[in-house]
Amino acid sequence: MTASSIQFPNVHLGPGAVVDDFVILGRAPKGAQPGSLRLDIGPDGVIRSHSVIYAGSTIGARFQCGHGALVREQCTIGEDCSIGSGSVLEFLVKLGNRVRIHSNCFVPEHSVLDDDCWIGPNVVFTNAKFPQTPRTKELLAGVHICRGAKVGANSTLLPGITIGAGALVGAGSVVTKDVPEGSVVAGNPARILCRVSDLRHSDTNELVYPGV
Amino acid sequence: MTASSIQFPNVHLGPGAVVDDFVILGRAPKGAQPGSLRLDIGPDGVIRSHSVIYAGSTIGARFQCGHGALVREQCTIGEDCSIGSGSVLEFLVKLGNRVRIHSNCFVPEHSVLDDDCWIGPNVVFTNAKFPQTPRTKELLAGVHICRGAKVGANSTLLPGITIGAGALVGAGSVVTKDVPEGSVVAGNPARILCRVSDLRHSDTNELVYPGV
Amino acid sequence: MTASSIQFPNVHLGPGAVVDDFVILGRAPKGAQPGSLRLDIGPDGVIRSHSVIYAGSTIGARFQCGHGALVREQCTIGEDCSIGSGSVLEFLVKLGNRVRIHSNCFVPEHSVLDDDCWIGPNVVFTNAKFPQTPRTKELLAGVHICRGAKVGANSTLLPGITIGAGALVGAGSVVTKDVPEGSVVAGNPARILCRVSDLRHSDTNELVYPGV
Repeated sequence: MTASSIQFPNVHLGPGAVVDDFVILGRAPKGAQPGSLRLDIGPDGVIRSHSVIYAGSTIGARFQCGHGALVREQCTIGEDCSIGSGSVLEFLVKLGNRVRIHSNCFVPEHSVLDDDCWIGPNVVFTNAKFPQTPRTKELLAGVHICRGAKVGANSTLLPGITIGAGALVGAGSVVTKDVPEGSVVAGNPARILCRVSDLRHSDTNELVYPGV
Repeated sequence: MTASSIQFPNVHLGPGAVVDDFVILGRAPKGAQPGSLRLDIGPDGVIRSHSVIYAGSTIGARFQCGHGALVREQCTIGEDCSIGSGSVLEFLVKLGNRVRIHSNCFVPEHSVLDDDCWIGPNVVFTNAKFPQTPRTKELLAGVHICRGAKVGANSTLLPGITIGAGALVGAGSVVTKDVPEGSVVAGNPARILCRVSDLRHSDTNELVYPGV
Repeated sequence: MTASSIQFPNVHLGPGAVVDDFVILGRAPKGAQPGSLRLDIGPDGVIRSHSVIYAGSTIGARFQCGHGALVREQCTIGEDCSIGSGSVLEFLVKLGNRVRIHSNCFVPEHSVLDDDCWIGPNVVFTNAKFPQTPRTKELLAGVHICRGAKVGANSTLLPGITIGAGALVGAGSVVTKDVPEGSVVAGNPARILCRVSDLRHSDTNELVYPGV
């Protein structure tokens, strides 16, 4: 911990953790008292400057956090995950292991990201099909990113969407329907372009985009 | 006020205000001296950590501000408004009452948001039809969001656009023309899909998207 | 320097520099010791609050930096440049003179921005054609913005794209191919609309968008 950082009671940092300046660990969520909820961050974590992690979340080993990132309460984050600078994880988000979320992303409550998935910069998840109506909360539906899927930069994922295992969402996509496992999609609205397995030249086995 | 926060002279915080760590209140805009301009924030405000609010703005009661938000000078913000984490309000922005701006949004000068409107995360307003030309400043045209309109996540609003009262802009839209009141639009460029009143099943009165 | 800011050894600030609160100058990148790498910031710079600039970068005169901006190591930034609030410049980014990058942008390694170019808010550059594969690093390809080009708000630029000199990318575009110099493009995927020279009414010489 640097002198300028703030650590509330009941924060449990594993050995080897590095905490930069102007960080806040264990901030109490609305309605809770400081120290009443536990924050666990596993060994060898790196929490970069100006980041805020709320009490009431559990984070695994070797967590890497960019500058000015925010992780709210009731989040469960596995091992070897990273959250980029300026990204926001709202409460009740669930990350598997080896999940990488890049910079300036927004991930609201009920989002689920399985092992090994990769989220590019400025990607926006949603969860409210009908924002600001009397039934909004009841009808919230989180996005589910299945194992090993990759979501390109600045994409927008509509509420309740599932991105299938190993799928690839092209940068700038607006995904309005579920994406089948192993598919490549792009566009607004996103449409299927090919299979991830097609991204190899049949002769050279080099990575290519078909038709590009 | 926490010990780590900075409050310049001539900041007037209503009773019940909560100010988190590493906040700056009343920063002087370019050309002004610290304390020369007044900052008013109404009662029961919550200013979360790492946020910056400039002198020369007026903010109503029960203001809620996320982490790392920025509100520049000459802004007028009504009652019961909220600005999400990482959002930027440039100078000369006008918000009515009960306006909610989510995380990582950008709202430049001359933007006007009427009562009860809702702006999703990572939404970007613009105002320069011809950026970086000799006449850019003269031709600036702000976006106007009319009463109760809702703008979905990661949408882009072109300069001078009006989003009519109660309209709904789908997530990921690029809005290049005015949106009539009560319409639902989506796409790049955004096109009219239906009326907001069509988002109810005729038999069950449940909320639905037609054709989805 | 304000009392709350942190300046590591081997930071060289030109005369007239203003450094706001909660800033970090000269943070050591991964693997380096504090002070082992030099940070140069030219005269009359303004580093606004909550920003972080790593050691190992060189920044010219009259640099303007918004709140909560991040500049990593091995960046080369010319004179009269500005980086907006919340924007992220990763390592190995090269900016010419008079480059303006607005708020909440993401600019990864290998990006090159020539003199006089303008990048709107929430614009996202990419560099990984095949993210998270064994050959990702080897196949990285930065975006090149040529002299005087302008990229509208919330656009997404695919890896290796060149935006030609003086070109204009409309807000909300997803640019998947090189843009010829002097062209106006927009859409997802972005297509050529006209020439920048067509943005003048033939009789009045006023700035106009053809067909709008």
